[in-house]
Amino acid sequence: MSVTAAPGFAAAGVSAGIRPSGRPDVALVRSLEPAVGCAMWTRNRVQAAPVTVSRRHLELAEPQAVVVNAGVANAATGAPGEDDARATAARVAERLALRPEEVVVLSTGVIGPRLPMEKLLPGVDLAAAELSATGGDAAARAILTTDAGPKTAVVSGDGFTVGGMAKGAGMIHPSLATMLAVVTTDHTLASGAEAGRLLRPAVERSFNRISVDGDCSTNDAVVLLARRGEAARGDASETAFAEALEAVCRDLARQIVADGEGATVVLEIGVAHAASAEEADAIARRVATSPLVKTAAFGRDPNWGRVLAAAGSAPWNGGFARLDPEVLSVAFDGTLVFAHGCPTGRVPELGGGACRIELDLGLGDGEAAYLASDLSTDYVRLNAEYTT
Amino acid sequence: MSVTAAPGFAAAGVSAGIRPSGRPDVALVRSLEPAVGCAMWTRNRVQAAPVTVSRRHLELAEPQAVVVNAGVANAATGAPGEDDARATAARVAERLALRPEEVVVLSTGVIGPRLPMEKLLPGVDLAAAELSATGGDAAARAILTTDAGPKTAVVSGDGFTVGGMAKGAGMIHPSLATMLAVVTTDHTLASGAEAGRLLRPAVERSFNRISVDGDCSTNDAVVLLARRGEAARGDASETAFAEALEAVCRDLARQIVADGEGATVVLEIGVAHAASAEEADAIARRVATSPLVKTAAFGRDPNWGRVLAAAGSAPWNGGFARLDPEVLSVAFDGTLVFAHGCPTGRVPELGGGACRIELDLGLGDGEAAYLASDLSTDYVRLNAEYTT
Repeated sequence: MSVTAAPGFAAAGVSAGIRPSGRPDVALVRSLEPAVGCAMWTRNRVQAAPVTVSRRHLELAEPQAVVVNAGVANAATGAPGEDDARATAARVAERLALRPEEVVVLSTGVIGPRLPMEKLLPGVDLAAAELSATGGDAAARAILTTDAGPKTAVVSGDGFTVGGMAKGAGMIHPSLATMLAVVTTDHTLASGAEAGRLLRPAVERSFNRISVDGDCSTNDAVVLLARRGEAARGDASETAFAEALEAVCRDLARQIVADGEGATVVLEIGVAHAASAEEADAIARRVATSPLVKTAAFGRDPNWGRVLAAAGSAPWNGGFARLDPEVLSVAFDGTLVFAHGCPTGRVPELGGGACRIELDLGLGDGEAAYLASDLSTDYVRLNAEYTT
Repeated sequence: MSVTAAPGFAAAGVSAGIRPSGRPDVALVRSLEPAVGCAMWTRNRVQAAPVTVSRRHLELAEPQAVVVNAGVANAATGAPGEDDARATAARVAERLALRPEEVVVLSTGVIGPRLPMEKLLPGVDLAAAELSATGGDAAARAILTTDAGPKTAVVSGDGFTVGGMAKGAGMIHPSLATMLAVVTTDHTLASGAEAGRLLRPAVERSFNRISVDGDCSTNDAVVLLARRGEAARGDASETAFAEALEAVCRDLARQIVADGEGATVVLEIGVAHAASAEEADAIARRVATSPLVKTAAFGRDPNWGRVLAAAGSAPWNGGFARLDPEVLSVAFDGTLVFAHGCPTGRVPELGGGACRIELDLGLGDGEAAYLASDLSTDYVRLNAEYTT
């Protein structure tokens, strides 16, 4: 049910003909009750037109609807691209009796081409006509590009539901990547600022801790829409909501990694007892993005040598994160393979769709966890062939 | 002729049986005249035993010989590994009537296993017996691992010759990588410190500006041996020597990239007019290591969108290097494909074994150049299958 799991939201997913395959490519989500909301965006210096336009909209108003198109990213399209994003928002606003600045516009797909507005605008009309309280799954399918399938997650708490949808595939990396996620909830929040205060840590611990290929796109976004209302700050219901929001984000993030381009295994990388939290993060990220670690994982090879080499060269503070090979230990799927500066001689059997790689640095209290996909021949094939 | 191109050096390469294939795996280089020398080492926090031992040797004495074994990296082997490295140096010293600290020991190969000393020491004896003034090419073959072929370079100047050999293949990345290079010259230098002063900038502009897979190994080293003697600092001959040294390093570095694991094309990445030299370097490095740029190159796809996305997310100073998409331009092989915030619509035909990607940021005076290999299905296959 994704974005329509929580009562008070309607969604639709339709085919506008932007994707040559004719697959669904326009999704629309709206709140049927007055909503507040927020978004977190890619930090890439090159930001797509919809990012620029939607940032501005969120400064002007609380969002009531989100429109997403797949197939064309509307990135590197200059001022005309921003006009297209604004025209898309205006069309949604017109159909839903909203102000344009109450609409968030997201795009994903190929960088460079202009949006085919002659297809997109009729698609928006169609989506608006098809909005329904059971449209969440159709919307989740309409935001995909090279994804193998839709990604949705729902968590319900005492008196509220959080539901979301995401798309991932390539360019998945910290600081967000070509990754879009829309999360809705009937939990009441007083303002977009409050929504942002809750969304930020949830994204930090989920979407910002995954890596498929280390690339960071021009279009990444996570949008949260919540019901507008009284919100008691600091009480138990806020804690429960924050936990549910993080759970939904983590669930979606894991699905993105599992469906990473060409992925055959999900690597769960844990770093414990680093000299600092920042260094734990740098080391986990370095291991998660090492092509040698990731190709070894594709070969189901418990290659702790490559893990060590990657961990020992994690960029931090102008040098490398602190690490002492005489003290650290490495385990694959719970089997200790390296300790006290030497291999233990144990060789775990790797298999299946997940692999835990745990480094204990024995230096301090820093901890971090990352999810990463492996690097397969199919990843290369997909990305060598994906069109410009 | 590699390391024996300059008069006054002898070398040998022999098969000691360390590599299961029976291919040559022990190289020895010695200076026949009193020498001075220096080395630059991997900055990885995990340093192989030969690195630790050879660093110490260079603090104690000027190096007169270099011994290299391929097949086993002697990394992550703890104190016993250091004993092995010291025993190797001692054996070379015994055979060549040197002190052990006058011997630099280098290893490359698999991380984890101990060196098979029962094979290596007889190999050292054999190499010492075979040392000759024409042994440079044999030595260059004996340091290889997954390399397709030997890498040598020679540049002669007015009254001096600089010759070198290198091995590369995987784990090639700035801050040195699994990359070994030994360079010899009959140009006279007064001390190891002076050699270091000359080697450092040459390495910065060559071996530290290449990337095959973004990984940085535990064993990387560049060693320079020069004839000991008077050296006039700051004169024309010093400049000529510095240029020749850099030319040899650049030649070897380019050969390493061209022979990167699975490489089908050498990417020449140029960044001009960045806000600072540091940012130019960060951006060039980010583009050089982007899996999406590198898979596109494998597909001969002039995918400037991926170049932009990579350039826009180059880590610098806790954020990303400065870049303005409205101002920058991107060219592939001299064809401008993106300018003033928009694609130009021109589509260059890519082909052959090299591709130039040039970014002009239009912001300042920062410049940088990088060489990178593409990311191919063969890279993944090689690294998924390479043994633990």
